[in-house]
Amino acid sequence: MVFRNLGSRLFRFYKRQFLKRGPHVVAIGGGTGLPVLLRGLKEFTENITAIVTVADDGGSSGRLRGEFGILPPGDIRNCLIALAEQETLMEKLFCYRFRQGEGLAGHNLGNLLITALVDISGDFQSAVREVSKVLKVRGQVLPSTLEQVVLVAELADGTVVKGESNISRSSNPIRRLRIEPEDCASVPEALKAITSADLILLGPGSLFTSVLPNLLVRDIAVAVKGTPAPKCYICNVMTQPGETTGFTASDHLRVLYEHVGEGWIDYIVVNTQEVPLEKKEKYAHDGAEPVVVDEQALTSLGVRVIKAELLDDTELVRHDPGKLAQVVISLEK
Amino acid sequence: MVFRNLGSRLFRFYKRQFLKRGPHVVAIGGGTGLPVLLRGLKEFTENITAIVTVADDGGSSGRLRGEFGILPPGDIRNCLIALAEQETLMEKLFCYRFRQGEGLAGHNLGNLLITALVDISGDFQSAVREVSKVLKVRGQVLPSTLEQVVLVAELADGTVVKGESNISRSSNPIRRLRIEPEDCASVPEALKAITSADLILLGPGSLFTSVLPNLLVRDIAVAVKGTPAPKCYICNVMTQPGETTGFTASDHLRVLYEHVGEGWIDYIVVNTQEVPLEKKEKYAHDGAEPVVVDEQALTSLGVRVIKAELLDDTELVRHDPGKLAQVVISLEK
Repeated sequence: MVFRNLGSRLFRFYKRQFLKRGPHVVAIGGGTGLPVLLRGLKEFTENITAIVTVADDGGSSGRLRGEFGILPPGDIRNCLIALAEQETLMEKLFCYRFRQGEGLAGHNLGNLLITALVDISGDFQSAVREVSKVLKVRGQVLPSTLEQVVLVAELADGTVVKGESNISRSSNPIRRLRIEPEDCASVPEALKAITSADLILLGPGSLFTSVLPNLLVRDIAVAVKGTPAPKCYICNVMTQPGETTGFTASDHLRVLYEHVGEGWIDYIVVNTQEVPLEKKEKYAHDGAEPVVVDEQALTSLGVRVIKAELLDDTELVRHDPGKLAQVVISLEK
Repeated sequence: MVFRNLGSRLFRFYKRQFLKRGPHVVAIGGGTGLPVLLRGLKEFTENITAIVTVADDGGSSGRLRGEFGILPPGDIRNCLIALAEQETLMEKLFCYRFRQGEGLAGHNLGNLLITALVDISGDFQSAVREVSKVLKVRGQVLPSTLEQVVLVAELADGTVVKGESNISRSSNPIRRLRIEPEDCASVPEALKAITSADLILLGPGSLFTSVLPNLLVRDIAVAVKGTPAPKCYICNVMTQPGETTGFTASDHLRVLYEHVGEGWIDYIVVNTQEVPLEKKEKYAHDGAEPVVVDEQALTSLGVRVIKAELLDDTELVRHDPGKLAQVVISLEK
């Protein structure tokens, strides 16, 4: 009895120990949106590749980018933390932000650790790999490019705004976004992950400053459009003042299509849960409102609309990591 | 045959796994001297307690002390690194020093990590304990006091100089050293380690700014003098300009005795290896020369003189960690 099925039990044990489990999911974005998704996803699969924009030029990341010439580490750091084993000392250190100290105040310790590691290990990707080990990250986090890129936005009135933080601050609608240099190289591991993915997820997060910049790296866009995996855009719950004021769900897709080409997105995930009045009023004060889901327009763009109640119960209007992951993971091929 | 001596083999296995090995050694000092000793000691015993001065007020440590109100972490950090498992990523990060960045240049990343940990864990000792775990430190590192102490030196000409870095810089001989507050409390774990030690080591390192400040914490001096363990002073190889200009070996002991009381030191370890001419000339340029071993004066002070060839082969005139540890470890009771 003891030895019955020993072979298959040994194989299962081996698989659990030595093979990573779950579908191969690629999540593309940046900012505070992508980490929310990753936090949920890691409960369903260990085969996660986060492809993260590195166009940030503000805050602690911007200072380090300016002073050390390294890629801005902030967005990548947040994704690493989202995929990390939680509640470890290292995770706490990576989250820590100095509130005082000349030149230290505002700096995130995780950013400083990545900066030191880039110097110690010689390059950005090795540094991120080392951090991944230390934080016991489930999956991998990759920058969409290793080059220093600058976002350039042409606004509705024809003016041109340079730099991620300037673009975020601008209240004029964005007509067209590009990155400089336009021919920046992608990271080979990112292309490989996209090509062999079971599911490609875009967002949630700032359309122009988190999601789109990744797709402006030409090879990334070509790989995403060409991979057989289903592609799903996760629509933001709220509009973002300046960037997407007044945008419906289909407006988000339209922007992606205008920049990268038509018709390659298979699904859009939208929230159908009512935003509580109190929060709605708070957001309205800043010029943000719930994104209107114009289902007919979406359908006419050829995407399948996945509707679900997705809100968390924090003070902000955010996706709940678990609910969101559960919905998107069911879309894998 | 297989089961013969199983009991004793199991006990040996248990001892190796669960009991720390080697004599209980307490090493008292600070600066760059104590880490040299610790680096050698850890190869002989796992029961090391380093008691470290926290009167530093210069450099990265001084800035953090001033801006965050924490104990200056630098000397403690160097001792932690000396006792750490070497060549790990964490060890490299703790050694890393920023060379650029506004407000970052000159800061040691290990100091920043300790600063963050004091905030996260709530107190200095917990922070040091957490670091010890992360660095896999062999032994424990304790500050001699948890209070913010200031060194005050009365010089030969009667002037009074305050602060460790000012005292180090002064070229006038020091007549008397004290700490403020004079009644600062010691750390209980330090007293416990001293009381149950098999060997007490003092130095090597700056006499006035690394070794003596620990003994000016009254409970530490009382415990050291009262413990039955043999006490050994490790004499510096070279004099230190300003602090110990022209000092013989017995002058070092005399200073300790003048401040803490007579006759409690059992051994003095002195180097008998000739300092190479080239190095001697380099040091002479800065006003430092080999400490003259006045053996008769030492013997008349009642200490046993342990002579050995102790130099390493780096560019500096330093003790070799292995040679030094081998000599001192033989002195345990």
